[in-house]
Amino acid sequence: MDRLVLLSGEEQRLRLAKVRAEMSARGIGCALVSSNVNLYYLTGRVFSGYMFISLDSDPVYFVKRPVHLSGDNVAPIHKPENIVAELGARGIAIKGCIGLELGRTSYNMAMRLLKAVDCPTPADITPAIAAARAVKTACEVSMIRESGVRHERTYHKIPSLYQSGMSDVELQIEIERVSRLEGCLGQFRIAGDDMELHMGNILAGDNADAPSPFDFAMGGAGTDPSLPVGANGTVIHPGMSVMVDMNGNFTGYMTDMTRCFSVGQLSPKALDAHQLSIDICAALAEMGRPGVEAKALYERAARMAADAGFESMFMGHRQHAGFVGHGVGIEINELPVLAPKSRDVLQAGNVIAVEPKFVVPGTGAVGIENTYLVREDGAMECLTNAPEQMIRFD
Amino acid sequence: MDRLVLLSGEEQRLRLAKVRAEMSARGIGCALVSSNVNLYYLTGRVFSGYMFISLDSDPVYFVKRPVHLSGDNVAPIHKPENIVAELGARGIAIKGCIGLELGRTSYNMAMRLLKAVDCPTPADITPAIAAARAVKTACEVSMIRESGVRHERTYHKIPSLYQSGMSDVELQIEIERVSRLEGCLGQFRIAGDDMELHMGNILAGDNADAPSPFDFAMGGAGTDPSLPVGANGTVIHPGMSVMVDMNGNFTGYMTDMTRCFSVGQLSPKALDAHQLSIDICAALAEMGRPGVEAKALYERAARMAADAGFESMFMGHRQHAGFVGHGVGIEINELPVLAPKSRDVLQAGNVIAVEPKFVVPGTGAVGIENTYLVREDGAMECLTNAPEQMIRFD
Repeated sequence: MDRLVLLSGEEQRLRLAKVRAEMSARGIGCALVSSNVNLYYLTGRVFSGYMFISLDSDPVYFVKRPVHLSGDNVAPIHKPENIVAELGARGIAIKGCIGLELGRTSYNMAMRLLKAVDCPTPADITPAIAAARAVKTACEVSMIRESGVRHERTYHKIPSLYQSGMSDVELQIEIERVSRLEGCLGQFRIAGDDMELHMGNILAGDNADAPSPFDFAMGGAGTDPSLPVGANGTVIHPGMSVMVDMNGNFTGYMTDMTRCFSVGQLSPKALDAHQLSIDICAALAEMGRPGVEAKALYERAARMAADAGFESMFMGHRQHAGFVGHGVGIEINELPVLAPKSRDVLQAGNVIAVEPKFVVPGTGAVGIENTYLVREDGAMECLTNAPEQMIRFD
Repeated sequence: MDRLVLLSGEEQRLRLAKVRAEMSARGIGCALVSSNVNLYYLTGRVFSGYMFISLDSDPVYFVKRPVHLSGDNVAPIHKPENIVAELGARGIAIKGCIGLELGRTSYNMAMRLLKAVDCPTPADITPAIAAARAVKTACEVSMIRESGVRHERTYHKIPSLYQSGMSDVELQIEIERVSRLEGCLGQFRIAGDDMELHMGNILAGDNADAPSPFDFAMGGAGTDPSLPVGANGTVIHPGMSVMVDMNGNFTGYMTDMTRCFSVGQLSPKALDAHQLSIDICAALAEMGRPGVEAKALYERAARMAADAGFESMFMGHRQHAGFVGHGVGIEINELPVLAPKSRDVLQAGNVIAVEPKFVVPGTGAVGIENTYLVREDGAMECLTNAPEQMIRFD
C-alpha cells in the first residue's frame, strides 16, 4: 500500500490554508475537488476520485483508482453517490452550498455530484483554488526552479541538434527527444478544454504568421487540421527566425521559456525587435514587485513596442494575442494574467512567464520568454537563464 | 482566407445526416457543438467557437479563432452572447431545448451558453454525436487505415531501437522519435477530463502490475506522481516482458496497437498467456459482425482466459480493467465498448481495438492489441498488421 498524500503534513497544511482562506472570502464552506491538477496540488499526486475539503473538518479522500492507496481519511469509492454516507460515518454533514470545480467539471458530472450530495445549487470553487495556486509555496518554487535548470540544459543542446536542410518539425522532434532524456514528462497541461499543443511550439519563418484557434501568444498552421498549431513542415532557410517555445514540465511544475535561432544573419529590423523583447523582459522584471498591477506590466510592454515602431507586430501580426504574460505552475496558463483588462495585482510567490514577442513579416517570430518569480523585495528573479540573444545555427 | 469546412460537401452531409438521425431519435431539434473533437468531426478542422446544427436548417459556424476563416454561414464572433442575433439575421430561431455537449463542456460554459440562447434547460448532444461517430464513414476508415500503416511501420523499427541496459523510459523516447518522424501528431486524445497519458504506454516487468488512476487496460507507476501511469524507469532485463502500446495518431484518426518484446526467452507461462491473447484476438475478429452484442465479445474473451487458467491475470492482476476492447477514432475511447454490461451492438463501420492482456507476476504484461473494422459481411478486418508473436530484442 502506498500513502495517498505525498506532500509533507506541513506543506499540505500550507496549501489547504490558502485554499480555505479563499473559500472563506467567497463564502464557500465545503467543496469537492476532482480535477487531476487540483488533486495533485492538494495531495502531491494524481488519483481518480474526489477530495472533500471544508473550513471546519479534515479532508476526506474518496479514491476510485488506483486501488492500493492508504492513509488517514481515505475512503475507497465506486461512485459519487456513496460520498454522503462516507462523510456521515465520519460525523461530517454538508451544510449550505457545496463548492465544485464548475470551470473544469463537465455539466453532467457537476449535476451528478450535486444530486449525490443533495445540494440544489453549487458554488464555484475554481477561482478560489486558482487564486491559492497563483501564490507558490517555497516547495512549489523549488520544483519550478528545478524545471528551469533542466529546461535551460535542454535549450543549450538545441544548436547541436540543427542540421542543414531540416524542417521545423524535424528540429522539434530532436528537441523533444533531448528534452525527454533530460526528464521532461511530456504532458503539457493547459487549463480549459479548448487548447491543445504537443510538447511545445516551434515556428520557422512566415509560419509564425498563421493564426491558430488557440489563445497562445503565437500560432502556426501545424501539420494537420486536427491540430492546427505550431510547426508546419517549413524547411529552415537562411533569413528565417526559428522560435523555440518547448515544454518545460520536468517536475509536475513547469517553466515557460522561449529562445530564437537563425541560419545566417537576420534583417536589422528583426534583430531590433528581438533586442526590444529582451529589453521589455528586463524592464518588466525590474517593475514586477508585490502590489504592482498586472495590467501595468502589459501597458509598459505595449508602450515600449509602440515607441519603437513595432506596434503592428507586437504579440502577432495577422492575429494578435491579448496578453504579454501569464502565471505558470502545474498548468501553463495560471494567474496572474498580464493583460490590459486584468484585475490581478502581483504578490510575492507569483511565478510569471513574460513573453513579449513580435512577428516580422518575411522573417518570422522573434523575441524571448522567461519565467520569473515575484519576490518579497527587489526585482523579479529569472528562473530560465539560457542566453537571450539570437543564436546562430551556423 | 482559408475555407473553414475542409470536408467535401458530400462527406459533411453524410456525417451531419448521421448526427441529425441520432438527434431526431432523442428529440433534440438543434444544438451547439463546441469541443475540438466534435468540431473536427463535423467540419474537418479544429477551430475555437461553436457550430449550430439543427434538423431543419443549414449549419452556422461561429468562429472565435482563427481570424481568417471564410465560407458559407461563417460568423466571426467574440462571445456566445452574440449567437442569437447572428442566428436571427439568418432567419433561424431556437425552438425548445438546445443540445449542448453536456458530457464535455464545463458546467460554467454550459450555463453561459444556456443563458446566451435564453433556454432554461439543455438537452445532452454528447451521446448523439458519440453514436454517430461510432460508425465510421469510408473517408474516416481510410484515415484510420493510413494510421495503421504508419503505426505498423513504426513498430517494425522497435527492435532496432533497443540497446542493452536501456530503461523502459529510454526505449519509449526512441519510439516516440521514430513515431513522430513517421508523422505521428503526438496528440493522444482521450474522452473525459480525467485520463492523461503522454504518447503511449510502455511497461517493462513488474511495473505492469502497478495500478494507475486511469481506466486504461494497463497501468504502470510512471516516473512522477503528477503523471502516475506507464514506464517508470525500469531497466530492461532478460526475463521481463516489454509491452509497447504507443500512440497511433498519424492522421487525426488513431489506430491502437500493442506488441510485446523481450530480452531472452520468457517463461512458458508468459508465452502461453501471450499466445492466448493472440488466439482471443483471432476468435473475436471472427465473431465480430454486425448485430453481435459487444458484451458477447467480452464474455468470449473472459471465458477463454478462464478456461486456460489465466483468469486472475486477465486485464490486470492487482487492479483489473473492466473491458477487453473499445471503439477508436478521433479519440482513443469511443463506442462500442466491449465490457460485461455494455449495451452496444456491433454495426458495420465500427472500428474497435481489441486488447486481451495479461499481467504475469515476475514477468510483466503480455498480449497484443489490434484495431479492427467491422464489415458488412465476414469477419472483422485487422488494420494493425505488425507481427503478433513475442519479439526478441536479442
